[in-house]
Amino acid sequence: MPENPEETEKLRRIRGGDVRMASRLIRNLEDRLPEAKRAIKRIFPHTGGAHVVGITGSPGAGKSTLVDALIAAFRKQSKTVGVLAVDPTSPFTGGAILGDRIRMQRHAEDPGVFVRSLATRGALGGLAKAAGDAVHVMDAMGKAIIMVETVGTGQQEVEIINHSHTVVVVLVPGMGDEIQAIKAGIMEIADIFVVNKADRDGAAQLISELTAVLNMAPETPEGWRPPIIRIGNAFDPVPFSQGLDELAGAIAGHYRHLVDTGTLGDRMRRKTMVEIHEALRDTILEPILKDLTESGEMDRVAERLVRKETDPYTIAEEIARRFLK
Amino acid sequence: MPENPEETEKLRRIRGGDVRMASRLIRNLEDRLPEAKRAIKRIFPHTGGAHVVGITGSPGAGKSTLVDALIAAFRKQSKTVGVLAVDPTSPFTGGAILGDRIRMQRHAEDPGVFVRSLATRGALGGLAKAAGDAVHVMDAMGKAIIMVETVGTGQQEVEIINHSHTVVVVLVPGMGDEIQAIKAGIMEIADIFVVNKADRDGAAQLISELTAVLNMAPETPEGWRPPIIRIGNAFDPVPFSQGLDELAGAIAGHYRHLVDTGTLGDRMRRKTMVEIHEALRDTILEPILKDLTESGEMDRVAERLVRKETDPYTIAEEIARRFLK
Repeated sequence: MPENPEETEKLRRIRGGDVRMASRLIRNLEDRLPEAKRAIKRIFPHTGGAHVVGITGSPGAGKSTLVDALIAAFRKQSKTVGVLAVDPTSPFTGGAILGDRIRMQRHAEDPGVFVRSLATRGALGGLAKAAGDAVHVMDAMGKAIIMVETVGTGQQEVEIINHSHTVVVVLVPGMGDEIQAIKAGIMEIADIFVVNKADRDGAAQLISELTAVLNMAPETPEGWRPPIIRIGNAFDPVPFSQGLDELAGAIAGHYRHLVDTGTLGDRMRRKTMVEIHEALRDTILEPILKDLTESGEMDRVAERLVRKETDPYTIAEEIARRFLK
Repeated sequence: MPENPEETEKLRRIRGGDVRMASRLIRNLEDRLPEAKRAIKRIFPHTGGAHVVGITGSPGAGKSTLVDALIAAFRKQSKTVGVLAVDPTSPFTGGAILGDRIRMQRHAEDPGVFVRSLATRGALGGLAKAAGDAVHVMDAMGKAIIMVETVGTGQQEVEIINHSHTVVVVLVPGMGDEIQAIKAGIMEIADIFVVNKADRDGAAQLISELTAVLNMAPETPEGWRPPIIRIGNAFDPVPFSQGLDELAGAIAGHYRHLVDTGTLGDRMRRKTMVEIHEALRDTILEPILKDLTESGEMDRVAERLVRKETDPYTIAEEIARRFLK
């Protein structure tokens, strides 16, 4: 690839932590500009230094407040922090951008903190990939901890969270079917459980049910037993900060565990597998769709389907024969 | 394609409304069995008769209760009904299967009602496609109305809802940022708004804000103005059933509008476009991933990425060159 001096300069500035350059690249990633893809190719070798922490849970579980407090906790330890708030719920919430601005303002004076949000644009896929690439940007900027915050509903969020080394699942008492939910698959992705708003009714029950489920769960391949951390009311300073310190400690502890047991590589490989899937979707499927759309063939084919002259799978097989070797 | 007499008999039975055969096919679709794909190819020409109604909204908006009541309302009009409950929120709720069973029991005696649920399985994509195909099965069974119920968060749900002719968005007062949400994209997909639990505080405000937003919205290409339907407390029989009749009427009215204005074809084409996208993902990308995984190349490539010897896009381009003409 020929070196482009202007691009080289931009990347140098991103690696130096330039907020404006990094923000612009993340915006270009959202907009799927080809230059963003080129930039990620060049950034990739300079990544891998950050500890990526996924923070997920139902809407209303208090994730944003928690992430805010964690920023402060990590900054006290002089760690630099990146936060990526991913909001794939575009049709029903428009809150991400607003929350982003509010948080940015609070940390605007601190060059050790970089906060960005991503929202869904366009129709098909791409958000998980954009999120993964935005994490690479923050990683290349030299952020020590990168928190990826997402609403824990849906498959795409699971894909996003697969980009993390450590997954924190935030639960709150009184949301209903928590344990049902835990049985249904959450066990597989959580490294740390947080029982947030633990001063509420139902906290003790949630914790005891969670403990019971964890006791029945097989040990992870990494030999890690997910801790359950209680966090009190955010407006009740003492218990909140106690729980918070414990959480910050558990997050660091999980990473140390991965390193000490030699299983960090496995996590990295899993993370990488997800990235390959996403890059293949982008590199193989997207250009075919673009070609079909621009040539007008997509419209013609749709017409044939509406008239029931054929079916979608037969069409897809015809197209596959033309494009695949 | 050679005729397989056993498959022909199965399809004949599905078209005759056989619940056991249809259920088995839907299960095979979830499990992505090749025979399910073959069956859909043969079923497709026999579809297109049903009115597909997407019902979406935030968790807790009361969609399931509403769908249950709509089943009864449509049955009173002697329409046959299919219901597909899609629950892509697997990591955090496990409720779909349970709800399915409860509902099935209630309507078990009525051969005019067929209820099934789909949940996420496996890691990558496929739920929207399985949902679309399950709708085809119910369509081929001869169901007059097919309701597809999904939690309205995330892109995948928007894809699922794109399989509908009529989209009903269910809101409830006091959930917070409803109007923010409406501005953020919901306008584009809703044909009918329901303000559910309209006896609650905040209902009047929600309705007036919704009306204001609707008044500012440009007219749809189909010249349809989404009505706002108030539905009271499910346990307060009179206002609930009034709102419900109005909703059932609006759903039928929207379909009539599409037919009368000649825009049903446009909806069908949009629906079809989504299906082509999904079939291409299934037919082009999935076999490549399978090949890479089974040959062990995926592992080798992941290892190179972990060592930062290359980047995901360069890898994807190499693979694309090998597989694409």
